Amino acid sequence: MKILLIGAHGTIGSAIDRELSPRHEIVRIGRKSGDFQVDISDSASIRQLFEQTGRFDALICAAGNVSFVPLMEMSEKDFALGLQDKLMGQVNLLLIGREFANDGASFTFTSGVISREPIRTGSSAALVNAALDGFVKAAAIELPRGLRVNSVSPTVLEEAMEHYAPYFRGFKPVAGADVALAYAKSVEGLHTGQTYPVG
Amino acid sequence: MKILLIGAHGTIGSAIDRELSPRHEIVRIGRKSGDFQVDISDSASIRQLFEQTGRFDALICAAGNVSFVPLMEMSEKDFALGLQDKLMGQVNLLLIGREFANDGASFTFTSGVISREPIRTGSSAALVNAALDGFVKAAAIELPRGLRVNSVSPTVLEEAMEHYAPYFRGFKPVAGADVALAYAKSVEGLHTGQTYPVG
Ligand SMILES: NC(=O)c1ccc[n+]([C@@H]2O[C@H](COP(=O)([O-])OP(=O)(O)OC[C@H]3O[C@@H](n4cnc5c(N)ncnc54)[C@H](OP(=O)(O)O)[C@@H]3O)[C@@H](O)[C@H]2O)c1
Ligand SMILES: NC(=O)c1ccc[n+]([C@@H]2O[C@H](COP(=O)([O-])OP(=O)(O)OC[C@H]3O[C@@H](n4cnc5c(N)ncnc54)[C@H](OP(=O)(O)O)[C@@H]3O)[C@@H](O)[C@H]2O)c1
Repeated sequence: MKILLIGAHGTIGSAIDRELSPRHEIVRIGRKSGDFQVDISDSASIRQLFEQTGRFDALICAAGNVSFVPLMEMSEKDFALGLQDKLMGQVNLLLIGREFANDGASFTFTSGVISREPIRTGSSAALVNAALDGFVKAAAIELPRGLRVNSVSPTVLEEAMEHYAPYFRGFKPVAGADVALAYAKSVEGLHTGQTYPVG
Repeated sequence: MKILLIGAHGTIGSAIDRELSPRHEIVRIGRKSGDFQVDISDSASIRQLFEQTGRFDALICAAGNVSFVPLMEMSEKDFALGLQDKLMGQVNLLLIGREFANDGASFTFTSGVISREPIRTGSSAALVNAALDGFVKAAAIELPRGLRVNSVSPTVLEEAMEHYAPYFRGFKPVAGADVALAYAKSVEGLHTGQTYPVG
């Protein structure tokens, strides 16, 4: 399969790359790094990306930004980043990418544990992760041509604990390699409309 | 209690009014109808509302608009209404309303069944409903002064079937009076961070 991997050089993306590259053609995409660049918060940039990559069999997004701010300091504008980048960025990858997707192609998005187990400063992340999982479940039933869509909702990764440990006290981190398996299940299996919690 | 009821003259709002008005002071709010007016999609309008109503013990929102469009015809802009109106409208009622909320006051928002059981044209509604339920769960743990926040996620109401039946074939509708009980549980109980599915 030809797999577009957005965020290929990130913590999760590089684990996915290790899992899938022995069996598939991986097109590595980042904001600055990779074979191609995209800013998922900008739909014009997304369209430009697909015009460069051409048709594909699977798209994985392991990228997406949200603001972490204490709720009592948050205003409307602190939610804007998460809505435009991690949420609508991934929604737009489907809305625009479907034109470039081969029959039976899959979209696999990344949400995260914070909607299941909220943390301090995590209200925008919780909102966005839950929204993604809800979108995936609904979008799946309307996709034509055997197109599929799932999300992976990992807990914090072992590889990220150096920076994230203070925010995730008591959480048991999961190995990136185990998170990557969920993406393989989505891409290489036949599920659709599923959210895979990992950890 | 002094309860601000947004959407008081709507299908759900009027059932809530019947349940709570025998025991509480209800301030009835609508976009055009009611004692006060607000457009929840506009944060300036929300601030103006609270300056008129003054402090409160409970806020209920039974209002919120989203676009229903077949997924394959949707573009980014079809998601904007749901994000700005039903989703950020209710988030902003909390972000702005907390300044006017008495100690121990509750916020009760309305999401809906479509995130649990998606329907055709419902991808924006599913995204928004799931986002609201995720936000409520996370925001609850950061609220000070005993402030609480919950959401009610009803299936389609009997009172709405005249118009909605074609979109909800096979769904067993629920009486508005039963939906209203969930709002009473949120307002008059002590739960926080909960989503009450009804039906
Ligand atoms: N790390 C965890 O423990 C964890 C757990 C659960 C969920 N998640 C979620 O998983 C996603 C990825 O996390 P991560 O820790 O792997 O991130 P990361 O290590 O910071 O890597 C992010 C990757 O995404 C790319 N990227 C960033 N913003 C982008 C944008 N607007 N458009 C396109 N590409 C963009 C980066 O490109 P460059 O390479 O060019 O910088 C990089 O390749 C995030 O949404 C995060 O919330 C992470
Ligand atoms: N009806 C159902 O079966 C059902 C089931 C599950 C979930 N829901 C959700 O529950 C919410 C209310 O539904 P409903 O059927 O009761 O609606 P409805 O009968 O159409 O009533 C809507 C009420 O909200 C007010 N309103 C509309 N847009 C507003 C805005 N932007 N700002 C402030 N107020 C606004 C209206 O004001 P005016 O009185 O001035 O027009 C009206 O009072 C919606 O979010 C809907 O998705 C409904």
